[in-house]
Amino acid sequence: MFTKYVEEYEMGELWRSRGRTITETDIILFAGLSGDWHPLHTDQEFAKETMFQQRIAHGTLILSVATGLIQMDPNVVVAFYGIDHLRFTAPTFIGDTVHVEMEVTDVLSREDGKGVLTVRQQVKKQSGETVIVGTIRVLLNSRKEGAPL
Amino acid sequence: MFTKYVEEYEMGELWRSRGRTITETDIILFAGLSGDWHPLHTDQEFAKETMFQQRIAHGTLILSVATGLIQMDPNVVVAFYGIDHLRFTAPTFIGDTVHVEMEVTDVLSREDGKGVLTVRQQVKKQSGETVIVGTIRVLLNSRKEGAPL
Amino acid sequence: MFTKYVEEYEMGELWRSRGRTITETDIILFAGLSGDWHPLHTDQEFAKETMFQQRIAHGTLILSVATGLIQMDPNVVVAFYGIDHLRFTAPTFIGDTVHVEMEVTDVLSREDGKGVLTVRQQVKKQSGETVIVGTIRVLLNSRKEGAPL
Amino acid sequence: MFTKYVEEYEMGELWRSRGRTITETDIILFAGLSGDWHPLHTDQEFAKETMFQQRIAHGTLILSVATGLIQMDPNVVVAFYGIDHLRFTAPTFIGDTVHVEMEVTDVLSREDGKGVLTVRQQVKKQSGETVIVGTIRVLLNSRKEGAPL
Amino acid sequence: MFTKYVEEYEMGELWRSRGRTITETDIILFAGLSGDWHPLHTDQEFAKETMFQQRIAHGTLILSVATGLIQMDPNVVVAFYGIDHLRFTAPTFIGDTVHVEMEVTDVLSREDGKGVLTVRQQVKKQSGETVIVGTIRVLLNSRKEGAPL
Amino acid sequence: MFTKYVEEYEMGELWRSRGRTITETDIILFAGLSGDWHPLHTDQEFAKETMFQQRIAHGTLILSVATGLIQMDPNVVVAFYGIDHLRFTAPTFIGDTVHVEMEVTDVLSREDGKGVLTVRQQVKKQSGETVIVGTIRVLLNSRKEGAPL
Repeated sequence: MFTKYVEEYEMGELWRSRGRTITETDIILFAGLSGDWHPLHTDQEFAKETMFQQRIAHGTLILSVATGLIQMDPNVVVAFYGIDHLRFTAPTFIGDTVHVEMEVTDVLSREDGKGVLTVRQQVKKQSGETVIVGTIRVLLNSRKEGAPL
Repeated sequence: MFTKYVEEYEMGELWRSRGRTITETDIILFAGLSGDWHPLHTDQEFAKETMFQQRIAHGTLILSVATGLIQMDPNVVVAFYGIDHLRFTAPTFIGDTVHVEMEVTDVLSREDGKGVLTVRQQVKKQSGETVIVGTIRVLLNSRKEGAPL
Repeated sequence: MFTKYVEEYEMGELWRSRGRTITETDIILFAGLSGDWHPLHTDQEFAKETMFQQRIAHGTLILSVATGLIQMDPNVVVAFYGIDHLRFTAPTFIGDTVHVEMEVTDVLSREDGKGVLTVRQQVKKQSGETVIVGTIRVLLNSRKEGAPL
Repeated sequence: MFTKYVEEYEMGELWRSRGRTITETDIILFAGLSGDWHPLHTDQEFAKETMFQQRIAHGTLILSVATGLIQMDPNVVVAFYGIDHLRFTAPTFIGDTVHVEMEVTDVLSREDGKGVLTVRQQVKKQSGETVIVGTIRVLLNSRKEGAPL
Repeated sequence: MFTKYVEEYEMGELWRSRGRTITETDIILFAGLSGDWHPLHTDQEFAKETMFQQRIAHGTLILSVATGLIQMDPNVVVAFYGIDHLRFTAPTFIGDTVHVEMEVTDVLSREDGKGVLTVRQQVKKQSGETVIVGTIRVLLNSRKEGAPL
Repeated sequence: MFTKYVEEYEMGELWRSRGRTITETDIILFAGLSGDWHPLHTDQEFAKETMFQQRIAHGTLILSVATGLIQMDPNVVVAFYGIDHLRFTAPTFIGDTVHVEMEVTDVLSREDGKGVLTVRQQVKKQSGETVIVGTIRVLLNSRKEGAPL
């Protein structure tokens, strides 16, 4: 999805990623890697008593998984540099399958052969429910600067 | 740090977390878990030719590590629900040690026994350089609703 | 729980940790990290024929998880240095949720600004059954030596 | 199984390894380590629509697990150096338990104190179905060269 | 690389993947996942006394990493089903960066809307040295059967 | 090492395991799995200021690794059930290679076809220094009860 030079994007362009099932393993691995062992993610007995009635995935796990679902061409992407107005809008449960949908909301070419692409990102479940919505800013090469693809 | 009822916070309050050294292992584990294998993180030969001259950690890895460095009391924290104006301002290299600094920028009590705490979060390296800056919103219990601590 | 200077503990003091659900993932990760692939932990067909009728967690996995469930203040804890009379008293199955209960059984201040805290540790399941019982010895700072908390 | 000097093997010798249950965790860990996130392994919704109707393990995961199920004596095994005519003949599902069966098909002593052992390797499930069949070549020490066992 | 319908390949076509640096972490994770703890991979003191003078990566780790370096379109790839004449020709050390080179050696369309693509695969290091060479067989959809790309 | 029926052991019998190098990866994985993120294990800047001047491995990591270095025959070992008088006597640093030495100190046959083997276990580094010493109790089958080996 971040596979084209900055000037090749158009306002309103849409993409959709492949899906990935969120497993108990992902939650355990993310608790271990992040160090966030909140019992809502790691204690089944505690989670049963909450409004969710079961363990839920960490919001930042789903955000991290989303970055991996996006195709990125190393010749094009200079940096993933900003997140704005991001909201975790619904829980992701063990067994849910998420994918990413994106829409180009701004394209800004710069004098230095690079440009900023702004996209509205939604992470959705198999049911269509949105679990994360936010704006992502990425610095991309422009064709005149980058190596030919 | 998210260990008090919402009404017990004051504007301008500051905290500082313990530190954590970011290792090559963390980067490999995060590439595997997120699925983001961009060669800037995973190909030493590629990384040598970039402006960084070495592999760098994923921005979302550092963001995830930051959530684990924050102490959270499960009786108090209802949900981590938003990120605003977040910028990745400098690279984190293998061997850098990061910690989190936070400042309360808004406290909003609600009618339903909960409230929104807004903090400006900075992730800094041992050198004092800021690698992430952004605003985090958390939903907390108020004392009248929550279990006594 | 190991968050106070040694002279601040009293004989008979009790604590209880948060819980953690033991998952299939934890067993696989521990088999991989320890190198202990005994089929009672990793072969479902073998385990079905044993008295347990299913796979069980490694005893040392539960012992390791217990150390992570205990809160430790780095300014106070000098070393975790001994284990005595430890017995694995019941199996932990996939899906069991364990927590740690501790009782102070000895406090010994030393001349060198440190002291030995001895606790009787029990790891229990959600059913109340004890899976590990033993005595743990920890070297702690005394107030006169340590940094002010 | 690769625990004897090369001249101690006979044509037609057979062994059978212990078993290991393939878990969802193994598939997630292997996707992360290999970087192969094909949705047949990692997207439950996608997998439901295929002929398998569920996620399946990566063939190279099962091949890797097979190498770990074989006992190897470090004083004997010089190198695992070749794979021939290997076919992935059936899918391995989450919860299947696999073991390895081997038959010696060639023994070749060399002048340099080493020799090549060729075995036909089958990886089978609890049902007896073969999931991988192939020929493995290993370089072993001969008794005159190696340290006494 | 496995991103086109079977009839779109031509004999002699070449591709080259991105690179990936093999780290100590990869070796530890693979030892844990495969269960293969041969001291040549995991004991530095043992490895120092061998002809390699240091620890080396498992051959099946490099083979697994190679499958992840190949781009696969899930709409095209039906199955990775065979390995022939594969040889591990040189050791991969910690810090080496590997990539995959492939050449189409056979294309066989079948009556059932699928076809077999045979490629000669080489895994090479940054120095150009080949560490694995072998033949890989993949079952692909043909355009008439598959969904439009 | 736990590969014989209980009555086949003699007082004073000795064994020595293979070695394993303790890596930064092992420490990160164990911090994640146990949840013990004490900065002595995970914060290089903190560790520099301690008496060790560098990060050290968790004692329970080394204890867990020791269980994996011991050979166990599933037909013989019924349960690993007790630890006595265990002391962590020296730090294990990143890059140290440990092995296990054991001495039979008691053999107790029971009426029920099983028996208790008591061993004095030492975990030592490549320098010969002992990092853990303690007594381990294991329940083994006796020949009359067990399947023939």
